[in-house]
Amino acid sequence: MGIKIGLIGYGYWGPNLLRNFMRQKDCAVTYVADSRVQRLQLINELYPSVKTTQSVDELLNSSDVDAIVIATPVFTHFDLAKKALEKGKHVLIEKPMTASVKEAEHLINEAVKNGLILMVDHTYLYTSAIHKMKELISDDTVGKLQYFDSTRINLGLFQPDINVLWDLAPHDISILNYLVEEKPISVNATGISHTKNGIENVAYMTVNYQSDFIAHFNCSWTSPVKVRQTLIGGDKKMIVYNDLEATEKVKIYDTGFNHQTDEEKEGILVDYRTGDIYIPKLSELEALYSVAKDFVESIASNKQPISSAQVGLDVVNILVAAQESIKNNGKEVKLKS
Amino acid sequence: MGIKIGLIGYGYWGPNLLRNFMRQKDCAVTYVADSRVQRLQLINELYPSVKTTQSVDELLNSSDVDAIVIATPVFTHFDLAKKALEKGKHVLIEKPMTASVKEAEHLINEAVKNGLILMVDHTYLYTSAIHKMKELISDDTVGKLQYFDSTRINLGLFQPDINVLWDLAPHDISILNYLVEEKPISVNATGISHTKNGIENVAYMTVNYQSDFIAHFNCSWTSPVKVRQTLIGGDKKMIVYNDLEATEKVKIYDTGFNHQTDEEKEGILVDYRTGDIYIPKLSELEALYSVAKDFVESIASNKQPISSAQVGLDVVNILVAAQESIKNNGKEVKLKS
Amino acid sequence: MGIKIGLIGYGYWGPNLLRNFMRQKDCAVTYVADSRVQRLQLINELYPSVKTTQSVDELLNSSDVDAIVIATPVFTHFDLAKKALEKGKHVLIEKPMTASVKEAEHLINEAVKNGLILMVDHTYLYTSAIHKMKELISDDTVGKLQYFDSTRINLGLFQPDINVLWDLAPHDISILNYLVEEKPISVNATGISHTKNGIENVAYMTVNYQSDFIAHFNCSWTSPVKVRQTLIGGDKKMIVYNDLEATEKVKIYDTGFNHQTDEEKEGILVDYRTGDIYIPKLSELEALYSVAKDFVESIASNKQPISSAQVGLDVVNILVAAQESIKNNGKEVKLKS
Amino acid sequence: MGIKIGLIGYGYWGPNLLRNFMRQKDCAVTYVADSRVQRLQLINELYPSVKTTQSVDELLNSSDVDAIVIATPVFTHFDLAKKALEKGKHVLIEKPMTASVKEAEHLINEAVKNGLILMVDHTYLYTSAIHKMKELISDDTVGKLQYFDSTRINLGLFQPDINVLWDLAPHDISILNYLVEEKPISVNATGISHTKNGIENVAYMTVNYQSDFIAHFNCSWTSPVKVRQTLIGGDKKMIVYNDLEATEKVKIYDTGFNHQTDEEKEGILVDYRTGDIYIPKLSELEALYSVAKDFVESIASNKQPISSAQVGLDVVNILVAAQESIKNNGKEVKLKS
Repeated sequence: MGIKIGLIGYGYWGPNLLRNFMRQKDCAVTYVADSRVQRLQLINELYPSVKTTQSVDELLNSSDVDAIVIATPVFTHFDLAKKALEKGKHVLIEKPMTASVKEAEHLINEAVKNGLILMVDHTYLYTSAIHKMKELISDDTVGKLQYFDSTRINLGLFQPDINVLWDLAPHDISILNYLVEEKPISVNATGISHTKNGIENVAYMTVNYQSDFIAHFNCSWTSPVKVRQTLIGGDKKMIVYNDLEATEKVKIYDTGFNHQTDEEKEGILVDYRTGDIYIPKLSELEALYSVAKDFVESIASNKQPISSAQVGLDVVNILVAAQESIKNNGKEVKLKS
Repeated sequence: MGIKIGLIGYGYWGPNLLRNFMRQKDCAVTYVADSRVQRLQLINELYPSVKTTQSVDELLNSSDVDAIVIATPVFTHFDLAKKALEKGKHVLIEKPMTASVKEAEHLINEAVKNGLILMVDHTYLYTSAIHKMKELISDDTVGKLQYFDSTRINLGLFQPDINVLWDLAPHDISILNYLVEEKPISVNATGISHTKNGIENVAYMTVNYQSDFIAHFNCSWTSPVKVRQTLIGGDKKMIVYNDLEATEKVKIYDTGFNHQTDEEKEGILVDYRTGDIYIPKLSELEALYSVAKDFVESIASNKQPISSAQVGLDVVNILVAAQESIKNNGKEVKLKS
Repeated sequence: MGIKIGLIGYGYWGPNLLRNFMRQKDCAVTYVADSRVQRLQLINELYPSVKTTQSVDELLNSSDVDAIVIATPVFTHFDLAKKALEKGKHVLIEKPMTASVKEAEHLINEAVKNGLILMVDHTYLYTSAIHKMKELISDDTVGKLQYFDSTRINLGLFQPDINVLWDLAPHDISILNYLVEEKPISVNATGISHTKNGIENVAYMTVNYQSDFIAHFNCSWTSPVKVRQTLIGGDKKMIVYNDLEATEKVKIYDTGFNHQTDEEKEGILVDYRTGDIYIPKLSELEALYSVAKDFVESIASNKQPISSAQVGLDVVNILVAAQESIKNNGKEVKLKS
Repeated sequence: MGIKIGLIGYGYWGPNLLRNFMRQKDCAVTYVADSRVQRLQLINELYPSVKTTQSVDELLNSSDVDAIVIATPVFTHFDLAKKALEKGKHVLIEKPMTASVKEAEHLINEAVKNGLILMVDHTYLYTSAIHKMKELISDDTVGKLQYFDSTRINLGLFQPDINVLWDLAPHDISILNYLVEEKPISVNATGISHTKNGIENVAYMTVNYQSDFIAHFNCSWTSPVKVRQTLIGGDKKMIVYNDLEATEKVKIYDTGFNHQTDEEKEGILVDYRTGDIYIPKLSELEALYSVAKDFVESIASNKQPISSAQVGLDVVNILVAAQESIKNNGKEVKLKS
C-alpha cells in the first residue's frame, strides 16, 4: 500500500486532492476528516475503502496515517499542521501556508527537527506552462527580466476570512518567485472593500527589487469578466501567459527595445522591434497529479519537494507585507531578507 | 471665413487636427508653424491655401489668427499658451495641459482675465463610447460606482521628456473624472525605468476617494500586446470598455453581488449573480471632429467647452501627485481640493 | 426504483449517459453491456450496484431491464434496437439513429406497433442555447429566416465506419430542423477523403428549400483549429451561435437590410443597418440530464419525447441524401417528403 | 515623368489606385475620367496637376496617356480595355477581369498581338501574408496540400450587377491559384438571393481537382459578423490565415495526422498530433503600392506581371463555372483546361 495519507477538509479542493492521491503508486488515502456529514457520505459512495470521520483528532491519532494533507481555511492551517508534525506525520498544506510569517517559520522548524517533509500546494509550479517559461528564462531566451505583470480577476467566490490578495495572489507570487531568482525587497499595495467587513475584494500590489525589475498584481473578486493573464518582459523576448487559453497558454514574442543616448540632443532614443511569435505545445498532464507525486516521492526518498515549505513561507512573507501596506495607505513595506 | 486658426506643431497629431479643423464650418486654419521645413512642405502640397512658417512668433503675431492650437511637446505648452493668451488669442492645448499645476492655474487665470477660451484636447470625452457610459451612469443603470480599472499598454513610442503615465494616463484620467462625480483625495503610484534616463516606461497608479470607490491605472510602453481596456463596476451593472474593438467597444454586464451579514456564523455571505450582456450600437463620428467643433462653437458663443481648462488642470493635478508618489516609493500623496 | 435501464456500449459517450441516468428520479441503470472487460471493470468500481456483462443478449433478455440505451457504432444500431423493441423494451439510440432511411422507418413502425417509446439522443435539442434561439424565432424577434450557416471543424477523432458528415453534422441538422419549420426539398454535398479508405474527412453540404431559405454545413476532422459556430439570419435580426464560448454562446445582432427597386436605374438598392447586440444569460443545466429525463418521463406518461424517432429519421434522411450527392459529384439529391 | 497613366473610374477603389500610382517613380497619373462631376472635383482639390474629364474617349485618345487603369463596374471592363488596347495603351483592370471567358481571351489576344501589357489587379497576390504562405508551401514546410477552405463574409455593400461570388471570391480564387500548382477540373456551387433580383447574396463553391485536394469558398453579404479567414491544410503543417488580424495574420500549426491500415480489423487507424504554433512577422508594405509598381515595371521592361492577364482569366473561368452550377442546382461544371 505504501504511504498512507489522511486528508483533512473535503470542500472545494478536497475532491481533487483525493482523486489525485488515489492515482499515485505506492500510496493510498486511508482517512478523510470533515465536519460535514454530507461531504463524508459522498466519499463513502465514491471510495468505499476510505475511512471517514468528523473528528480531526481521530484521523491525526490513527496509526493508519503516515502523512496529512490539509485543505481547510487558512486560519486553521497552523494548528492542524503543528499537531500533525508533533505526531510525526509528514504534511502537505493548501496555499497560502499560514496566516503569519511566525507560524510558517515555526512549522518549518518543527519539520526540520523531526525530519519530516513539509510541503505547500502551490499547484502552478507543477504546470507545463510554468515549466516552459522557466526553461525559456533559464536558457536566456527571454534575456534579462524587466517586469512581471499579472491580472487575476473574476466574479465571485468571496472568501469570508481572507482578502482577495490572500485568496488569488498566492498563485502568481509563487510563479514570480519560481521564475525570478532575485529576491524582492519591498511591497506596496492598495485595495478596497465593498462588503462592509473590511476584507478587500479589489487589490493591487507592486513588488519592488534592488534592480530595475518590477512585479505588479491586479486581483479582484468583482470583475464581470474572468482574466488569468501574466505579461513577462525580458530584454530579448516578452511572454504573454494566458491560463484561460485551452491550447495557446504561452505566447513568446520576439519583441524588444534598445535605448541609446543621443549626446547631441541630450535625449534618449528608443528603438523597438517586433518579430515572430512562437506558441509551444504544452503537455496536458494534470498539475495536481504531479503535486501529489512530488509529496509521495519526497517522503519516500527524504528530499525537498519543488513546492517546499520555504516556497510557502516566501509567499506568506509578501502577503503579510501587502496587508500591512494596504492598511497604511499604500506605503512601502520592507521585506525581511 | 469665420474663426481663423493657427496651428503650432505638425508632428504625429498635427495632421489630424489640421484635417478636422478644415472640415468645420465658420472656421479655417490659416497658419501652421513647425520648425521642420519638410513637415511644412507636406502642408503646402495638401493645403496650398494654408500659410506655413518656421517662426512661432510670426504665427502668434499674425492678424490672420484668432485662435491657437498647440500640438507640441508638453514642456513647451505653458510658454506658447501664455504668449497666445497675452496676445488675445483663444487657445486649445494638446493633453496633458502643462507640466505643473502652477502653470495650468496661471493659464486659467490669464484666460479668465482676458475673456478668452482656454481648452485642452482630451479627445476621449468626445467619443460615443464615453458618452454612452456617461449616460448609463447618470441614469443610474450602473448603480453606485465601485471601481474603475484601466489598462493602456503597448510597445513603443517612448517619449523623451515625460514618463508613461504623463503620456498614456491623461486619456484615462480624463475619462475617470468625466464619469465619476466624486473628487479624488489622494494618489499612490509605482513604476520603473528601463531606459537609464529615469523616465518610467512602466507605471501603476491608484487614485483614492473618501468613499469606497477606487481607481487604478496600468500603463506601459513595453508590452508585447496592445491593450486599451477599462473595467467599470457599479453595484447594479459592470462595464467592459475595450477601445480596440471595432464595433463592440462597450459591453454592459448585468452582473453584481450582494452581501449580507450572517449573524450566527459572524461571517459575511456574498451572493453574486450573472445575467444578460448588452452591447449598444455606437455612433462612428470621429471624436476629434467634435473637439474642433466644440472649440469653434465655444469661441463663437463664449461658452465653456466640455474639455475645459479645468478638466485639463484636474488631470495635471493627478499626474503631478503620481510623479511625487513614484519618486517617494509609492507613498500616498494628497490631492489639493 | 422506477424504470430500469440497460445501457449497451460504454465507450466515449457511455459514461456520460450512465452518470446522467443515475441522477434521474424514478429510474436506475441496472445493466451495462460492453465487449471490453476493462470498460466493465471501471463500472464495477464506480457503480458497484450495476450489473455488467459482455453479452448483449443477456442484457436484452433480462427482466431487470425495461428500457435500452444504445451507445454503440452506427452500423449496429438497427439490429440492437430492433431486437430490443421486439422484446418490448423502450429504446433510446445515440445519433445518428441508423445507417439508412429504411432501417429508421422499420424501427419507427416496430415501436408504434408495440406502443413503445423510441427516441434518438440529439443532445443539442436540450441545450438552453437552442431553446433561447427557438424562442427568438418563434416570437418573430428574428423575423423571416433567410439562412443557416454552420461550421463544425476540429482535429482528429476520425471515425472508421462513417464519414465526417455522419459524425458531426447530425448535431447541426437536428438544430436546423428544430429551428426551421419549413421542410427541406433537396441536398447538395461535396467532400474528400485523405485517408485512402474513401471515408470523407472534409465535407460540405447545402440543404435547399422551396422558399429562399438556405442551409449550409462545413464539417472537418482535419482543421488545426476547433470551431463550433452557426450563423442564423432573419430579416429582422441575425444570430451568431458559438458553442465554444463559455458564457456568451448566443449573440443576437439587431442587423438587417432592406431592398427596394429603383425603377429609374433598373437596379436594386440595398440598404443595411447595424444596431445593438444582445447576449442573453443561459441556464447551465447539463443537456444530457434533460435528455435522460425526457426519455424517462416519456416512458412514464407515454408521450413523444422532443427528440423523437421522427426527428432522428429526418436527420438520417438528409445524411443519406448527402452521401448520395457526394458520390455523384455534388449533384442535387431530392429528399422524400 | 516616365509612364503616363490614365485612370477610368474614381469610385470606391479609384482613390487608392490614384494615390499609389502617384507614389511611383518614373510614372505619373495624368488623366482621370469619371461620369460624376463631384468625384472629379475631389481630384482637382487634392491633385491639381491631374487633368479630369467626364469623357472616357477624351482620356483614351489623349497623347498624354500611355497606360490605362480601369476601375469601373465589371460589365464595362471589356469594352474599355478593348478600346485602350486597340489604341496601343497598356491596361490594368480591376478584378474580376471580365464578365465572360470569351471576353478575357479576346483581350489577351489583343494585348499579345500589339505587344502590350495586360494586367489584372488581384491585390492579394502582392501581400506579405500570401508571399509568406507561398514560401512555406514552395519549400515543402506545409507538405502535400490537402484543402483550402475560405470564408469571406460581412454585412452590406451589395453589388447591383454581380453576385456575391463575383464580388468577393476573386480574392480567394486568385490566392488559391497562386498557392496551388495543380489545375482545378470542375466546380460546384449553390447560393440564394434574398433581394428579388436573382443576384445571389449568399453563395458556396467547391473547386475540385484530379488529386485529393479540395477547395471551398463561403461568401456572403448578409453576415452579422465580418470574417476573412482561410484554412490551408498540408500533410505536414496547417495554416490559418486571418486577414482581419492586425499583426497575427498567418498562424502555422505543426499539426497533422497519419493513417495506416490495420489489416486485422480491416479498419483505418488515424493518429493525429498537435504541436507548436508559429506566427511569422510580416512586412507592412501596402500591397496596392506593389501592384502599381509591378504594372509600371512590367511596361518599362516588357515582362509579364505577377498578376497577369492569364491569372485574371483563370479566375473568370472559375466564376463563370460557378454561376452555371448555381443556375443548374449545384451540378458539377467542368472547367476548360
